[in-house]
Amino acid sequence: MAISFDDVTSINPIAPGRYAAQLDAAWTIGGRPHGGYLLAVLGRAAITAGEHPHVLAVSGHFLHAPVPGPVEVEADVLRAGRGASQVRARLVQDGRGCVEALVTTADLGSAQPYWTGGLAVPDVPGPESCMRVPGRTPLGMAVPIMDHVTVQLDPAVTGFATGRPSGQGQMRGWISLPGDATFDPLSLVYATDALPPATFEVEPTGWVPTMELTAYVRALPEPGPVLVQQHAHLITGQRVDETAYVWDCTGRLVAQGTQLAGIRLG
Amino acid sequence: MAISFDDVTSINPIAPGRYAAQLDAAWTIGGRPHGGYLLAVLGRAAITAGEHPHVLAVSGHFLHAPVPGPVEVEADVLRAGRGASQVRARLVQDGRGCVEALVTTADLGSAQPYWTGGLAVPDVPGPESCMRVPGRTPLGMAVPIMDHVTVQLDPAVTGFATGRPSGQGQMRGWISLPGDATFDPLSLVYATDALPPATFEVEPTGWVPTMELTAYVRALPEPGPVLVQQHAHLITGQRVDETAYVWDCTGRLVAQGTQLAGIRLG
Repeated sequence: MAISFDDVTSINPIAPGRYAAQLDAAWTIGGRPHGGYLLAVLGRAAITAGEHPHVLAVSGHFLHAPVPGPVEVEADVLRAGRGASQVRARLVQDGRGCVEALVTTADLGSAQPYWTGGLAVPDVPGPESCMRVPGRTPLGMAVPIMDHVTVQLDPAVTGFATGRPSGQGQMRGWISLPGDATFDPLSLVYATDALPPATFEVEPTGWVPTMELTAYVRALPEPGPVLVQQHAHLITGQRVDETAYVWDCTGRLVAQGTQLAGIRLG
Repeated sequence: MAISFDDVTSINPIAPGRYAAQLDAAWTIGGRPHGGYLLAVLGRAAITAGEHPHVLAVSGHFLHAPVPGPVEVEADVLRAGRGASQVRARLVQDGRGCVEALVTTADLGSAQPYWTGGLAVPDVPGPESCMRVPGRTPLGMAVPIMDHVTVQLDPAVTGFATGRPSGQGQMRGWISLPGDATFDPLSLVYATDALPPATFEVEPTGWVPTMELTAYVRALPEPGPVLVQQHAHLITGQRVDETAYVWDCTGRLVAQGTQLAGIRLG
């Protein structure tokens, strides 16, 4: 029985603006909860504490990697506006701050795009022609999250799996949630960080821990898997940046993200 | 006599982690201080309060546009690590929170890039062959900041100035600080938001106010102007995203940014 994304990101109020959550041991990489998953938990606290139903923009800075198990989430509404609100959220484990975030919330509504000329939908084969990412990296690290989320990569970016990375620093593929649940703004935040690191197609490494992750949610997606494209641009000083764009299965751009991460190269 | 970037972003300590600053009337768009300028002031407070000399990653969420004049800046160190620290910073005017930010600080050092394959330097003519942006937008809004900072655009993206936008949603050009000062991490944060909106090359509008801006600083630039490329990807629900990449005059990628802004289109 699949554990739903809603289940693993659920929160229980314990005081005004204070929530208890359980970080799931399956949503981990090398034993540490996944960064986009943590940011989705913070996003849930922000929309619960605030006036608006959707995460529009979330920025998380990662202080300390928590372990699976109980955490507390704090959410303080900084400004409750008519069109948008801003919420400060933090994830704490055993009294130690793990992730600090700022969240702008809004109602995404159903507006049709006014201009979409900035980005074409990438040409990726359907999920059935793609390669499912297994629960272990090429260098042997356990990624149990991949046994729950179905990530199917464009064969053109899977050279890393056989020791022949393309050198391009790109990753593209489809993501389906447990039970094929429809994506919402919180799972879209996770989706901006869900593919294997684009740097695997430069040089496979161990864990690439997120230092900062910012995601924008632009529209509510149609049911079905989402298509994600990630690009790395520069590895320097043992850090790498990566951008992510997320389309729903009708080809609509629904989310985008950028992150800075640590990497053991250089 | 040019007012330097250091001058307009200077802060004076008034208590531990508390600073007074003066928002300069010249660093404004339509009377409101520029978003990237505000984030640079917050970045200065973060490196002053914290242990590390450089802004590595900064995320600002904009609550309320301040006016030129006195403000207070608060900076609280959330974690002081060996390699990086995280600081929460906020800009307050007359008791009202205007900008909330999270800042990760570090020492950028002098590491040479390990991999640069993700992005080519855009092919832009030298500054002398570009068009200087005047202190007024095509629709007549005053942008006095452009009388102090020299922004010189690639002629290929200046159709908007004569009522013939290219439709591409791109902006490219050179930026020089007052007195041709060398860029540092704080002025690079400003640079990620310094060009006219890339949406002017879709359709000119009034003010495109920043809702969220995240910038990463990747290296200390060489002296000289910097080259910036901005791309808009999607206008929907009266909001637009925009990415920015910044190269120093030797062609090294030194900063990158992403923002979500409001826009009166759609």
